[in-house]
Amino acid sequence: MATPDLLLDRQGRVLSLTFNRPEHGNTLTQGLLNALSDALDVADRDPDCRVLVLRGTNGQFCTGMDFGELTERLTRIDFGVSSGSDSGDAHYMDLLRRIASIGKVVVSAVDGQVMAGGVGFLAASDLVLATPASRFSLPEALWGLLPACVLPLLIRRIGFQDAYRLTLTTETWSADQAHTSGLVDEVDTDLDGAIRKRMVRLSRLEPETVRNLKAYFRKMWYLSDAVERTAVDEIDRLVRDPRIQENIRNFVEHKRFPWEGRS
Amino acid sequence: MATPDLLLDRQGRVLSLTFNRPEHGNTLTQGLLNALSDALDVADRDPDCRVLVLRGTNGQFCTGMDFGELTERLTRIDFGVSSGSDSGDAHYMDLLRRIASIGKVVVSAVDGQVMAGGVGFLAASDLVLATPASRFSLPEALWGLLPACVLPLLIRRIGFQDAYRLTLTTETWSADQAHTSGLVDEVDTDLDGAIRKRMVRLSRLEPETVRNLKAYFRKMWYLSDAVERTAVDEIDRLVRDPRIQENIRNFVEHKRFPWEGRS
Amino acid sequence: MATPDLLLDRQGRVLSLTFNRPEHGNTLTQGLLNALSDALDVADRDPDCRVLVLRGTNGQFCTGMDFGELTERLTRIDFGVSSGSDSGDAHYMDLLRRIASIGKVVVSAVDGQVMAGGVGFLAASDLVLATPASRFSLPEALWGLLPACVLPLLIRRIGFQDAYRLTLTTETWSADQAHTSGLVDEVDTDLDGAIRKRMVRLSRLEPETVRNLKAYFRKMWYLSDAVERTAVDEIDRLVRDPRIQENIRNFVEHKRFPWEGRS
Repeated sequence: MATPDLLLDRQGRVLSLTFNRPEHGNTLTQGLLNALSDALDVADRDPDCRVLVLRGTNGQFCTGMDFGELTERLTRIDFGVSSGSDSGDAHYMDLLRRIASIGKVVVSAVDGQVMAGGVGFLAASDLVLATPASRFSLPEALWGLLPACVLPLLIRRIGFQDAYRLTLTTETWSADQAHTSGLVDEVDTDLDGAIRKRMVRLSRLEPETVRNLKAYFRKMWYLSDAVERTAVDEIDRLVRDPRIQENIRNFVEHKRFPWEGRS
Repeated sequence: MATPDLLLDRQGRVLSLTFNRPEHGNTLTQGLLNALSDALDVADRDPDCRVLVLRGTNGQFCTGMDFGELTERLTRIDFGVSSGSDSGDAHYMDLLRRIASIGKVVVSAVDGQVMAGGVGFLAASDLVLATPASRFSLPEALWGLLPACVLPLLIRRIGFQDAYRLTLTTETWSADQAHTSGLVDEVDTDLDGAIRKRMVRLSRLEPETVRNLKAYFRKMWYLSDAVERTAVDEIDRLVRDPRIQENIRNFVEHKRFPWEGRS
Repeated sequence: MATPDLLLDRQGRVLSLTFNRPEHGNTLTQGLLNALSDALDVADRDPDCRVLVLRGTNGQFCTGMDFGELTERLTRIDFGVSSGSDSGDAHYMDLLRRIASIGKVVVSAVDGQVMAGGVGFLAASDLVLATPASRFSLPEALWGLLPACVLPLLIRRIGFQDAYRLTLTTETWSADQAHTSGLVDEVDTDLDGAIRKRMVRLSRLEPETVRNLKAYFRKMWYLSDAVERTAVDEIDRLVRDPRIQENIRNFVEHKRFPWEGRS
């Protein structure tokens, strides 16, 4: 089942899924999202798999959507080849909801950089462990975008104001800052050791209990299916904005940021 | 009004209610819940009583529902003697709501262990003081259960993610961890001294103001009456699950945990 | 546009608004609220203004509604000259919502005391910076009142329980306590330096992005327009309560607190 972009490794009751596009900052393509979706199917069918671990290669966990692929999509929308409604954002939002509802304990093991859509995986995970060198940011607003699909789950995990400040300031958090806010549950240089220590207790929970627990907590929060549709619609609206499209194209083609001169 | 299971002690403007089933970990029986309900009536009728203090005896605050009594209830359901709808859970949920709406300042003074349903009293209290030796846990998921009635108030008090992590990991928090999460407002070796220091200021609030304040904050949160019904329904559903009933019976009768071998 | 009560100062992309009623603790009058509303209009029309800074003079940021003006209003209600529905509270609530939705980054720079309605400006701001000597409190409950309009935004910023405890205990928080709760984002002796350090990054956000971002986060929280009406109605109800009116009049006329003897 392993693809070049997503590595699967099963050890005992733990299935590790490793983002593996190191030359592209482990950014998310449609191919990678499909591979992740398939891997969740594999885990779902396997009652002996109790824990899923998400990882990244080469000092990067995941740095968000692939802007090159996004630009190609924008061009297809411009030429009327695509309505844009086949957007990857609904797919991404679905994946976050699946992670937050699957009957496995999902652990994000972060060693390095997490940006934009990568933060969404942390927000959807049950537990987030990170090495001290890890870094966390939501730079979307610099291009006029918003981390729209990340926010419903991020606000749930770290509260309104920390999610707001991270989005507005586009600042980068250290592992300690991420821990203080609750984005990270534990900072440890030895992520595998930290997971092992938690395995005894976590393995005692039956898959059905984990599924019940996630479904019940979803009912105990105010963010419903409607909010997820709002999130997907907002991203869809923003990527159709000519000003934002220009910001993204200038960055992809010329590595020029919006504030470095607008045509 | 004092019963053997709940001790009442009035000193000035303070009424102390002390859980007193030390030989049973101060677990909650229908009798104890009734006694607590009666004690709230007493306080409600007394305008000079301004502060209620909840306590436990013998190094335990309260360790949740009495599993023995629960097993007897399950047996009555099995034999059709009871529909289960006379469940103690609706009663327990009502008590939490009363504590969170009564026109008295309610202080939980914790010295020792708090588990499961005991955590609900803390979540519903206005202030929680604890000695450094106190310990806090929600072990329900080990049996396939959920702290369903505790969570609406616990999420309100400590936020979604801390409530989620405490439930999922079934880990035990120290007093310091409980303080960091906001489950405990103040850690002090001298609980009576800590209460005395706060009395001057708290006594200045009129009972009607406290009642208004609690009612208004309830409107300022998203958890409504419907969520409380959802909570009671969820527990009702779970205790009818044969797998969970077996887990509980094995524990009550053989002190065997679910992961120690399932028949 | 500057009035004696509100000073306006434009430096580069930053417009500073300074509460300037030092002899009255920078309390809020209808005149001051009008001046603040006008200043927001000025900022709104000016695309080069990117950041608004709120400040106070003379060791006080803002200490809430002017009780003297409130007493006069109560007298007009008593004599049937006013229905009370021209209350300043709807105006105040509107101002908080405007601050929380305007396409500028709003920074509260606090040096000194913040009380009651003054806390609302912090809750509505994007960033709150404070000197170590600053102090924060919600004393409304001492008179039987509630910080009704402050709470929807305060709960969003610092969470339910911290907002609840600050209201119920009427205690005063130090800058460090306010920072721990999230009411303050940064404690610094040099507020201007702290703002300067953040300006490079904040100036990169276009006004339309800031407006989008605020509108989207509003959709991501559960407090809607209806809650703001509930808040205004609650204050309207409380100030019509004869017991509370007497509390306020005794304080304005005799500096007597409610617990110092009730007639």
